[in-house]
Amino acid sequence: MVVQRSVRTLGDIRRLIRGLPGPDSSAVERALEREPQLTKPPGALGRLEDVSAWLAAWQGRHPPSVERIGVRVFAGSHGVVVHGVSAYPPEVTAQMVANFEAGGAAINQLSNSTGAELRVEAIEIGRPTRDFAVGPAMNEEEFAEAFAIGMDSVAGSMDLLCLGEMGIGNTTSAAAVSHGLFGGEARDWTGAGTGIDGEAFIHKISIVSKAVRFHKDTAADGLDILRRMGGRELAAIAGAVAAARLRRIPVVLDGYVSTAAAAAIEVFNPGGLDHCEVGHVSAEVGHRRLLQRLNKRPLLDLGMRLGEGTGAVLASTIIRAAAACHAGMATFAQAGVSDKPKG
Amino acid sequence: MVVQRSVRTLGDIRRLIRGLPGPDSSAVERALEREPQLTKPPGALGRLEDVSAWLAAWQGRHPPSVERIGVRVFAGSHGVVVHGVSAYPPEVTAQMVANFEAGGAAINQLSNSTGAELRVEAIEIGRPTRDFAVGPAMNEEEFAEAFAIGMDSVAGSMDLLCLGEMGIGNTTSAAAVSHGLFGGEARDWTGAGTGIDGEAFIHKISIVSKAVRFHKDTAADGLDILRRMGGRELAAIAGAVAAARLRRIPVVLDGYVSTAAAAAIEVFNPGGLDHCEVGHVSAEVGHRRLLQRLNKRPLLDLGMRLGEGTGAVLASTIIRAAAACHAGMATFAQAGVSDKPKG
Repeated sequence: MVVQRSVRTLGDIRRLIRGLPGPDSSAVERALEREPQLTKPPGALGRLEDVSAWLAAWQGRHPPSVERIGVRVFAGSHGVVVHGVSAYPPEVTAQMVANFEAGGAAINQLSNSTGAELRVEAIEIGRPTRDFAVGPAMNEEEFAEAFAIGMDSVAGSMDLLCLGEMGIGNTTSAAAVSHGLFGGEARDWTGAGTGIDGEAFIHKISIVSKAVRFHKDTAADGLDILRRMGGRELAAIAGAVAAARLRRIPVVLDGYVSTAAAAAIEVFNPGGLDHCEVGHVSAEVGHRRLLQRLNKRPLLDLGMRLGEGTGAVLASTIIRAAAACHAGMATFAQAGVSDKPKG
Repeated sequence: MVVQRSVRTLGDIRRLIRGLPGPDSSAVERALEREPQLTKPPGALGRLEDVSAWLAAWQGRHPPSVERIGVRVFAGSHGVVVHGVSAYPPEVTAQMVANFEAGGAAINQLSNSTGAELRVEAIEIGRPTRDFAVGPAMNEEEFAEAFAIGMDSVAGSMDLLCLGEMGIGNTTSAAAVSHGLFGGEARDWTGAGTGIDGEAFIHKISIVSKAVRFHKDTAADGLDILRRMGGRELAAIAGAVAAARLRRIPVVLDGYVSTAAAAAIEVFNPGGLDHCEVGHVSAEVGHRRLLQRLNKRPLLDLGMRLGEGTGAVLASTIIRAAAACHAGMATFAQAGVSDKPKG
């Protein structure tokens, strides 16, 4: 186990992200050698075969296994809600954290249904970030603190990590971070979130546009964009993604907000998200575009847009199934099945 | 529990399919009434919300639940293999049945990983159907026998039924049945199956084309097309689909072969597959087209093309998750979460 590095400054985070380890190519080789021996036509398990090799690469072992699935959901509050960018009042963030703790939310049912271990981290939800339309959401110390909380959440042993979030206002943050990282127009990245429309939706787009213009010239890099227009739960997701890489735990990202947070790592250090699969493509408009920019194919496309890690946990059942097939199937030789096409 | 009707003739099967019961509209109403009270923005669980209402409709109860998942895999042998339509020799069907029984196949790993109960029925695999390029694959009695085996396999209590198949040569059967049911050109419906190409693939297309021309004028209806160009495992799938409807067990179809078998029911009695979801869209070329004709949206799209029920069982985890969310989530009132958009 790699010893976890502490981060206290943006500089620490930059060093950490620059130094992320690569895949275990020997484990991948063993996966690629085993796969064609299994009792099925070559390639017949499609994406599951890629997933098995990916698991081996980033767990650093062969055969890969997915017994212990961890789910980490981070919650944060956003100063940008003063602009009326959400259909729900900001107190819903704390109410939903209570709902998570009482076991009543969608992510609770999905985690139970999957046998995954869920932990929720509310990060100073009584203290919103600053309104990022007029200044940085977090100073460097606040950003590093939230990032470190995400890193620490990955302590403990797990085979797969699903990441989710809750935070009224955070699709505005995701839109601004994505727009800041990848350019284009604000309207390309801004969606209805929890369900705004009409004037409020137009206003949300204008806030995203204004924020990106405000921070454009001063943001130093992708990580600084995340500090300036992200939120504490987004910073924590980035921290968890980085820590999981160090600990050889493959990651399943959820929807737009989780992916936008993680995207800052990829922009800062291309390849930094190679240990991450994206569980699903959200109905939130910017997510599909973001996945294209990241060259990520989602595992599921079910029109979901809830966050909380729900798409990630649903997809984790597919990843577990891929590992089960790869590790457990008989080979042609073991089963006495003819493996040679007769032609 | 509806008493299972026995079938001995094609006429019995026709009467059965004509008389399939409809959905439980009262259970659907209760599902639609509960859904918007759950602690999430309206529609945020996307397809899962549709699946919950569909489960209620066809289980005939609210809330729906998916505890016991049954998997039934039927195997059969095909006379049409004399034309060299498969990349594998026909003895692989029996070898794979032995592999299923020994627990070494993909469907075993997926069933275990999902907690589903798997049963395999090899239907006279020592006695292939007749070559359907030159005559009917089965006579009426043989067809009814295989159909009844499928019906009987659904005895016992389950909340969801996944259907799969194994049979060297059966993608040729699926292509011929689909082409026979929906017209178009043989090349639109014919794929590589276990992996043929070049001359053999061209020949497979010509066999499908020839068979459909041969049976076109004499086939009485969709069910008769299934008898003439299907196989025993396809007939059994149709029987299981029908019996599940009678027993109020929603069904998950797998890939091209399973869907082609079930399609005969839909063509004979439109709406006859309303209790079926399609687990995934196969990489086998005709499947996507077939789903369009049936107006079915697959739950997964993972480039799989193995059969055995693998795509159905993978998708069953999503259906179980949908039921878990619908039944287990707290309402806004229970959780004390603000449910009114503030605007």
